[in-house]
Amino acid sequence: MDFSFTSLGCASALPTVNRYPSAHVLQVHGRLFLIDCGEGCQMQMRKYGFSFLKLSDIFISHIHGDHIFGMFGLLSTMSLLGRLADINIYAPAGFKSILLSFLDHFGDSFKFNINHIVLDNSSKHLILDAKKYQIFSFPLYHRVECYGFLCKEKDPILNIKKYLIDQYNLSLKEIAQLKRGENVVRESEEILESSEFTYKPYIPRSFAYCSDTSPSDKIIDAIKGVDLLYHEATFADDMLEMAKSTFHSTARQAAEVALKANVKKIILGHFSSRYKDLSILLNQSREVFKNSFLAEQGHTFSVDIVKE
Amino acid sequence: MDFSFTSLGCASALPTVNRYPSAHVLQVHGRLFLIDCGEGCQMQMRKYGFSFLKLSDIFISHIHGDHIFGMFGLLSTMSLLGRLADINIYAPAGFKSILLSFLDHFGDSFKFNINHIVLDNSSKHLILDAKKYQIFSFPLYHRVECYGFLCKEKDPILNIKKYLIDQYNLSLKEIAQLKRGENVVRESEEILESSEFTYKPYIPRSFAYCSDTSPSDKIIDAIKGVDLLYHEATFADDMLEMAKSTFHSTARQAAEVALKANVKKIILGHFSSRYKDLSILLNQSREVFKNSFLAEQGHTFSVDIVKE
Repeated sequence: MDFSFTSLGCASALPTVNRYPSAHVLQVHGRLFLIDCGEGCQMQMRKYGFSFLKLSDIFISHIHGDHIFGMFGLLSTMSLLGRLADINIYAPAGFKSILLSFLDHFGDSFKFNINHIVLDNSSKHLILDAKKYQIFSFPLYHRVECYGFLCKEKDPILNIKKYLIDQYNLSLKEIAQLKRGENVVRESEEILESSEFTYKPYIPRSFAYCSDTSPSDKIIDAIKGVDLLYHEATFADDMLEMAKSTFHSTARQAAEVALKANVKKIILGHFSSRYKDLSILLNQSREVFKNSFLAEQGHTFSVDIVKE
Repeated sequence: MDFSFTSLGCASALPTVNRYPSAHVLQVHGRLFLIDCGEGCQMQMRKYGFSFLKLSDIFISHIHGDHIFGMFGLLSTMSLLGRLADINIYAPAGFKSILLSFLDHFGDSFKFNINHIVLDNSSKHLILDAKKYQIFSFPLYHRVECYGFLCKEKDPILNIKKYLIDQYNLSLKEIAQLKRGENVVRESEEILESSEFTYKPYIPRSFAYCSDTSPSDKIIDAIKGVDLLYHEATFADDMLEMAKSTFHSTARQAAEVALKANVKKIILGHFSSRYKDLSILLNQSREVFKNSFLAEQGHTFSVDIVKE
């Protein structure tokens, strides 16, 4: 039951020798999702051992080159490797014409479908509903239409407290009923309460992605209490005005979002190339929110299972 | 008077962890040219210390993704860095609609012109005429319209043999005449022959690029006697049939081209991802043509000046 985030690229618009443009892997329950797909994404996936085969869904925050220029090479490579399975790309409406132009020029031999799921900017939306988790999109506040993504595990099926099965001589029907959260009323009028006989095997985990964006209270509502937050931190305090005018965040502002949203851990990323040493960003974030970390390419942040 | 070639990417269509798609730098007399521009080219340029500012001309062999997907990020980065100077892109006619679609989606803030010079597939053509060298395109033989490139230094201006100036009391006018290759006839009817009084300061150097292509006698004609040849060597002997059917070359075939064209040195590149150890390609090439080398990303092959 993996639930983890790995950055493949922590640069902002200008990549550096060591920092690639935005691309990130979210691994959830054996599936592999890509969030943004900057140039070099396919090489970074190979470098860090992520399988193209397992990838079924790509989430694109917005149509800026540093978040999508890796898509063309990645899709072409999938085709060369013989891919037949559909791929879903969740992206703003403007992505359609880019995709069509790409397929027009380079898609002749593609044997798989690319489904563009158009994101809706009006509010938070459920965009992927799996058996054990859901993924939502929600609006961010950038120079162009831009989305954050939230992945939340569903409440797990309740487990029965095994030592009570014999003690109460529970039938299979009664067990199923209790696990559904329903109380059992026996002929003897004895009531067996589901909450007494069951427990949650684990507390649902959650992850949110916010890049690129100005800080916003509306974002705080959307990501309340997540275990792991990736938030852009393009600038340090010295560039606050630049952050405002370009609709980006400083590391301190990202940390304030984390604090107000009561998240458990924040990962900072999307660093401006002007910061050779990123410790200034980390320090300014930690002044506000202690559990701050820098995205480091190839490093995986896992959210551990916590039992109730 | 630099004259050198550096591969930034020696992979074929499928990049590997260590091999990027085709992109190469040709440095000639202080100018920097790019030949092909596969994904990750801008990161590789940074890694190996090549300036975006010095880059004025890009040569695209053909419209396959592994030779052009790095163009979008590179041009965007140039714009972000404030570029104002024109950039010339020599590419097949089909590049036009790709460029227009790119500019339509991502070019709003570009403050420099991108001039697309359409390559002509009919024969060898002069496409860039600088003071001291020329660049030609010539047809290759691939699945799609494809070009090789040839860079040749012009014959240098003749130098006067300094010890003869005093000996013959040469006037400035006479020196200029002799340096132009003209004989001087003095009033005394004495004839000063240019060939006796001058020498070539260096033998013109040349480089040719052939990727992607089947081997061909027509290519041999176009690249005759070059000092340095980059030739694709996608496959080893074991994949000869595959090389034929996909219009690629084996390392041995590339070496045969080098031998027949009487070049001085061949650099093999565009390696299939199936070859983890490239020594098989190098060995098969050297069986035919001893002066064979593997393109190694970041390694610069210089052509030294040879005096006459």
